[in-house]
Amino acid sequence: MKNIAMKLETVKWDNGSVVIIDQTRLPGCLRFLRCRTAGQVREAIRTLQVRGAPAIGAAAGLGLVLGIGRREYRDFSAFEKKVDEICAYLCSARPTAVNLAWALERVRRVMTRNQARPVGLIRKLMLAEALEIIREDKQNCRAMAGHAQAAVKKNARILTYCNAGMLATIDYGTALGVIYRAQELKKNVTVYACETRPLLQGARLTCWELRRKRVNVTLICDNMAGYLMQQKKIDLVIIGADRIAANGDTANKIGSYTLAVLARFHRIPLYVTAPRSTFDLRLKTGRQIPVEQRDAAEVRSLWFKRPMAAEGVKIYNPAFDIIPAGLISGIVTETGIITPPYTKNIRSRMTA
Amino acid sequence: MKNIAMKLETVKWDNGSVVIIDQTRLPGCLRFLRCRTAGQVREAIRTLQVRGAPAIGAAAGLGLVLGIGRREYRDFSAFEKKVDEICAYLCSARPTAVNLAWALERVRRVMTRNQARPVGLIRKLMLAEALEIIREDKQNCRAMAGHAQAAVKKNARILTYCNAGMLATIDYGTALGVIYRAQELKKNVTVYACETRPLLQGARLTCWELRRKRVNVTLICDNMAGYLMQQKKIDLVIIGADRIAANGDTANKIGSYTLAVLARFHRIPLYVTAPRSTFDLRLKTGRQIPVEQRDAAEVRSLWFKRPMAAEGVKIYNPAFDIIPAGLISGIVTETGIITPPYTKNIRSRMTA
Repeated sequence: MKNIAMKLETVKWDNGSVVIIDQTRLPGCLRFLRCRTAGQVREAIRTLQVRGAPAIGAAAGLGLVLGIGRREYRDFSAFEKKVDEICAYLCSARPTAVNLAWALERVRRVMTRNQARPVGLIRKLMLAEALEIIREDKQNCRAMAGHAQAAVKKNARILTYCNAGMLATIDYGTALGVIYRAQELKKNVTVYACETRPLLQGARLTCWELRRKRVNVTLICDNMAGYLMQQKKIDLVIIGADRIAANGDTANKIGSYTLAVLARFHRIPLYVTAPRSTFDLRLKTGRQIPVEQRDAAEVRSLWFKRPMAAEGVKIYNPAFDIIPAGLISGIVTETGIITPPYTKNIRSRMTA
Repeated sequence: MKNIAMKLETVKWDNGSVVIIDQTRLPGCLRFLRCRTAGQVREAIRTLQVRGAPAIGAAAGLGLVLGIGRREYRDFSAFEKKVDEICAYLCSARPTAVNLAWALERVRRVMTRNQARPVGLIRKLMLAEALEIIREDKQNCRAMAGHAQAAVKKNARILTYCNAGMLATIDYGTALGVIYRAQELKKNVTVYACETRPLLQGARLTCWELRRKRVNVTLICDNMAGYLMQQKKIDLVIIGADRIAANGDTANKIGSYTLAVLARFHRIPLYVTAPRSTFDLRLKTGRQIPVEQRDAAEVRSLWFKRPMAAEGVKIYNPAFDIIPAGLISGIVTETGIITPPYTKNIRSRMTA
């Protein structure tokens, strides 16, 4: 990893606190935020200072360890009660990305497995597990990027959406990891990044990190994707995911569904790139995935010099939508690409 | 016309100058801009202080009269030369909406027809023609709104795009005129307005004028339209047009093509509403329509508190796209709705 950019980590454990890149300050300003309490981690997740399904999972795992703290607990049951409390508290920060619940549950299970041991030791083991999530995330991103190359031809013109890059993970990315790997393999790919309203993760974050790694990227508004496809300027769509149901239906940033319909209409392959922690096999279909509704101010005024919509106008601001599995060419995971029939192939891939 | 809002006119001839609503100031501020020269009119068109295909046609017609001025001309040939010069100058302000060229040509033809007459009189007749364009625009909008009602059911949930309202015409609108008429007929329609990046005509202008007329409107980001359709929350899509080729291919604000694909995928009817001045029968198909490319700053920084994209990132910013006729359910004109086969039916409607 010669590239200097590789040294940046989106979420990091540092000397008893959680340090994250404050993504609300990008692209203007690369600033780190040090969280010393579970409350600060929760707030960072809620306000999207840290965002992206794998990254919020990683932050939450460490946030749980922060919440436990170094204090004494009367007995295991008091400790367990506290842990459950913090889990519920952190988990409620954002509802759609299942990686949040998954990471908390994974760290929590270490407690259950070790309940005979002293609390001080359990805490250490839980921290080790949270750090293991981070280590695995880096590995998973590289594995996904490798598997996905089967779908990336030389000179491919790739459309991506929102940010599924190093900023959404620890340091490489899911969808953007595929692009970084293609670039390392000298495939000469070019990228179109949708700005991704209302929070502009594409314009602010994806363009920022692609430029850092010298990827040839062009920014478009979300409503320009169809026109690009019509002009045959897109060969491949690659996006991340926030939750994938047992049948392959995929929740991702609002607008992903529109891209999937456009890709199908123009016969352009669309791949979802997500580690197995993004799958939620308890949900049969995407209809059961909760879709977060966010504040109207994000649309009306958040980034703007002045309010950009008529005063008092109603605003609908869902943060995600659901792509039916039938519109997805393949789901890239760390153990390989899953293709239809999804229900069967997801089940076997997850239990493998 | 009891509604106070009806008294507003987007483009007006007032005491020897052209007064327009400065649309770049909306919705925060309703301010009028007085243009005393053709140069000021051209600048107002170029910077979108006045925009919308019919409105820029109306402004250009009056702008030509301003350009002629009250000075003496040596002879008709000197006058004609000046008129051609002003026409070319105004026409180059924006390339896509054909109404601009159409209005200029229409006013210019008055000159040709009256070349035997004194220049002072020709000028008066040309002004009368430019005012006639404005009078007809009001009539056309009401006629289109009437014809389109056949496509608007009670309780219809209508999606619209950009601004094809009073601000894009003189005082009623093309697509929004249909909605105003439906409301007058107590059809209880509700409207979703796409914000329309990068210039936010939907958020700023459409929501502003729909709210003034107490239409039940909800603002969404452009990337949310697909999700609404998937949830079966849209019954009908109505948009305006900037230029329509002989085969029905329609240029409209960038993003319209994406909406048309989404509407087809969800089997939702999509109607284009445009006066016959928007048709350009010299062009066989939409491929021949010039698509304006605008400045990257519109995407990156125009409305924002700070630049919203990574420094130096390339930006692609086409202002329009082309909907193939095959995706259009009907084109509403002032003389009725044109349905497929378009080439034949457009020809007979235009020569009727």
